[in-house]
Amino acid sequence: MASNEAVVKLVRVRRGASVLYGVLEGDSVQLIDGDLLGERQLTGESVALGDVQLLRPCEPTNVLCVGLNYASHLQGREAPTHPAIFYKPLSALQDPEGPIEIPLDSKDLHFEAELVIVIGRKARHVSKEDAEDYILGYTCGNDVSERNWQKGSMGDPADRQWWRAKGSDTFGPLGPCIATGLEYRDSRIQCILNGEVVQSQMLSDLIFDAPTMVSFASRYVTLLPGDVIFTGTPGKTKAMKPGDVVEVQIEGIGTLRNHVIVTPE
Amino acid sequence: MASNEAVVKLVRVRRGASVLYGVLEGDSVQLIDGDLLGERQLTGESVALGDVQLLRPCEPTNVLCVGLNYASHLQGREAPTHPAIFYKPLSALQDPEGPIEIPLDSKDLHFEAELVIVIGRKARHVSKEDAEDYILGYTCGNDVSERNWQKGSMGDPADRQWWRAKGSDTFGPLGPCIATGLEYRDSRIQCILNGEVVQSQMLSDLIFDAPTMVSFASRYVTLLPGDVIFTGTPGKTKAMKPGDVVEVQIEGIGTLRNHVIVTPE
Repeated sequence: MASNEAVVKLVRVRRGASVLYGVLEGDSVQLIDGDLLGERQLTGESVALGDVQLLRPCEPTNVLCVGLNYASHLQGREAPTHPAIFYKPLSALQDPEGPIEIPLDSKDLHFEAELVIVIGRKARHVSKEDAEDYILGYTCGNDVSERNWQKGSMGDPADRQWWRAKGSDTFGPLGPCIATGLEYRDSRIQCILNGEVVQSQMLSDLIFDAPTMVSFASRYVTLLPGDVIFTGTPGKTKAMKPGDVVEVQIEGIGTLRNHVIVTPE
Repeated sequence: MASNEAVVKLVRVRRGASVLYGVLEGDSVQLIDGDLLGERQLTGESVALGDVQLLRPCEPTNVLCVGLNYASHLQGREAPTHPAIFYKPLSALQDPEGPIEIPLDSKDLHFEAELVIVIGRKARHVSKEDAEDYILGYTCGNDVSERNWQKGSMGDPADRQWWRAKGSDTFGPLGPCIATGLEYRDSRIQCILNGEVVQSQMLSDLIFDAPTMVSFASRYVTLLPGDVIFTGTPGKTKAMKPGDVVEVQIEGIGTLRNHVIVTPE
């Protein structure tokens, strides 16, 4: 792992009925005035991490996702010539420690550990060279995917688009913080299912890097502060079942942990 | 056309720096307290339609769209066994009279006149029988589509998902009002390009009706007040070019008009 002394970890937390913003330092949150997207002024006040609930660290207007972005995940499929993008709806987002809900008729629900780009400035027609300036930082994401709806199997045809395969409620956990100043290429991403490492890859192995994804997307879709881009998952994934605990861990960012339940009727 | 005496037309308008909500009556807007989603109390004040700018009538959290929903649009493709859903990002939404921007490398940009459902109440796991209760009303939409990115042609492969084909900036004009109390099945939808009728179909010809779409989507995606569902386009569509004026007209709702420009650099 690279040294990441310059990394600042921004968090959004709930305390009672209030939503607070702050900088994570060890087990305490140094509170800041305003939200994470403007000038960040420490208030001097801090709260213990144990006294608050971590929320997903941003509130996007749009959630973009890139598929097929590691050679290890292609599994015979042709590498795309440009980032292969799709959307999740905002209703799919989930907080750290929140449940991933298995829809009632889901048959094959997989984890996908992913690096997630968080946009800091409005980005439209941005060049690859300038794209870093529009990135606030990075967080962890789980691009939860129902393979039966995505690819068709077990006698069912694939859906034409991935709307429910990738976009059902709770299929987009995000967190625990936005790491600013992170050299993500030096970090490893891992997925840990019930304590066992099930995905592990260096983020330098991304086929399209973060500036390329931001630049390409911004030619068509104006990205707004707080918007996120899931960047694809490495290797092979597995099915999850009720009771499972799934963690997405990225060096320099932290661990996004969620548990799996059957959706309540 | 059916008689639609019971129809109330809700609008969202801009006057100077303010956004106002009201009921459209002829050429005037009867203002209401609060927004369109809560209890609607007339203030007694009205403004002339000519003194305000019509905005898209709602601010969704998610924009769902259904494809292949008229037999006349299938063109040899198999009819889906359930609604074929995809998303537009919020950045794609456009107001009445706003421009539809052709992306710089677009080659084949088509109109798609569509009925749009506006959700009035949070809808999750809603039955088909109850679904009408969750619909606030209906508006007109243009599901602007870049066919080259959607289907591949002219030597280009199709994109894996329809993110830019259906989701580029301004690809989702919406308006002019939310018609409540509309029996949409008795209405005709038309698309008018530069004064010529280029699509025309009865809305009773939808393969999946509005309650079916709301019920099916809500099994996977929690729909929130103000969310919209584009319901598919009839017949054949054509390419648009800069300078074109495109209108989506639905009896009982009104006309959504936009003009076409090349996107500014």
